[in-house]
Amino acid sequence: MSDITLEQAQSVVEAAHKAAVEQGTAMNIAVVDAGGNLKAFVRMDGAWLGSIDIAQKKARTARFFDMESGSIGELSQPGGSLYNIEVSNGGLISFPGGIPLTVGGDIVGAIGVSGSTVEDDRAVAAAGVAALS
Amino acid sequence: MSDITLEQAQSVVEAAHKAAVEQGTAMNIAVVDAGGNLKAFVRMDGAWLGSIDIAQKKARTARFFDMESGSIGELSQPGGSLYNIEVSNGGLISFPGGIPLTVGGDIVGAIGVSGSTVEDDRAVAAAGVAALS
Amino acid sequence: MSDITLEQAQSVVEAAHKAAVEQGTAMNIAVVDAGGNLKAFVRMDGAWLGSIDIAQKKARTARFFDMESGSIGELSQPGGSLYNIEVSNGGLISFPGGIPLTVGGDIVGAIGVSGSTVEDDRAVAAAGVAALS
Amino acid sequence: MSDITLEQAQSVVEAAHKAAVEQGTAMNIAVVDAGGNLKAFVRMDGAWLGSIDIAQKKARTARFFDMESGSIGELSQPGGSLYNIEVSNGGLISFPGGIPLTVGGDIVGAIGVSGSTVEDDRAVAAAGVAALS
Repeated sequence: MSDITLEQAQSVVEAAHKAAVEQGTAMNIAVVDAGGNLKAFVRMDGAWLGSIDIAQKKARTARFFDMESGSIGELSQPGGSLYNIEVSNGGLISFPGGIPLTVGGDIVGAIGVSGSTVEDDRAVAAAGVAALS
Repeated sequence: MSDITLEQAQSVVEAAHKAAVEQGTAMNIAVVDAGGNLKAFVRMDGAWLGSIDIAQKKARTARFFDMESGSIGELSQPGGSLYNIEVSNGGLISFPGGIPLTVGGDIVGAIGVSGSTVEDDRAVAAAGVAALS
Repeated sequence: MSDITLEQAQSVVEAAHKAAVEQGTAMNIAVVDAGGNLKAFVRMDGAWLGSIDIAQKKARTARFFDMESGSIGELSQPGGSLYNIEVSNGGLISFPGGIPLTVGGDIVGAIGVSGSTVEDDRAVAAAGVAALS
Repeated sequence: MSDITLEQAQSVVEAAHKAAVEQGTAMNIAVVDAGGNLKAFVRMDGAWLGSIDIAQKKARTARFFDMESGSIGELSQPGGSLYNIEVSNGGLISFPGGIPLTVGGDIVGAIGVSGSTVEDDRAVAAAGVAALS
């Protein structure tokens, strides 16, 4: 199993942080490793306290299923095939903002961002993902 | 109370594992006993980490109500009679992949499978169930 | 990061199970991977229900600190340097029965065994460890 | 209420990280704000997984009572006035490695470090504290 290094995780956080500053938002940014365990985290000044947990849950959700957190949400709606999957794993977050992190095609962890609209959150997470490519 | 033996549980897991290999999927497979307590578990290489908990919750859900996990999901939708029952019992999973296990007509436990589509999950669980008949 | 395969985990469980049979005890046997996530589990017939959780916590404790669970307990006593560390990580078990699993010198996971005296538990865990060497 | 800024928190983490590198240890380093909420976190490569939670709990413990985590431990022993206080607040850590962070005499948060002996942990935390003075 490939795993993310702290140097890689910090470059991801730094790129996401920079994107949030440019966006004018205050974000919580979390990176988990290949085992789903927290590797790096920052909360920007003024960012929502409730998003500390959500950013981490988005990152874990993305690594737990090796897909974007928002992709889970498309299946977990009423009538969907994964309805209410969010109650598992101590709480999943199934809206956008969690994205797997890859190095050379291998998933090495995931990033989760929370603090604004889900569109903003996802854009900042994507900026973090791009730092590894 | 009739209860599943470890030998039976392992034959269930083995049959389900074999079905998943044939299916080309990477599954988490859990068997609980008549008391709803974990009896046997395997996670295939590369299987989703988030499905460790879901496989176990599917098995418990099936034994807790002596019906397939997916049958609960038909009643737990918005407006349904068991709306949001998923928040009980430390988290239930109400989509397919959990099936009671029976020996001679008596329920002795349940199997839960998670790692692919709910159709794949249920097919693998059914292969496990068939090992006891 | 090296990680345990299911085939390796099952050989560990099988060796531990065999040792418990020879010992005449009924054990819960858990194997976690390099990320601390459950990989394989069996509960022998008649084994304590309360040990389902303890076996898993012993395995996680051993991997969380890359040492035997009992080594933590030597430091966590009243007056010790890690007093009451057991309240962390959702509950640690600091008495013997959890041992890291290594392949070629790399830690790839851990085994946890619970169901008898801590001496019996540790002996069965050690038999599991030996399966990988 | 004075509160730590992200820039300050990152300088604390950076100083602690540098001290750990010089010490030759692999640490989990957490900073919480004046409200006890996570502000910044890093896990060095190879650091214990079980210390992710402990580092955060040390930081929270230090801010929750505005004293070093180890000072709590002197009172929480059997027969002590705060016996078993560790079970409160979702788990406190009462051994050294958590220290309040101050700016101009005001407590603005706390640092928690975990990954080696408590003496090493505390020394690294102290290096983090010094970054704000």
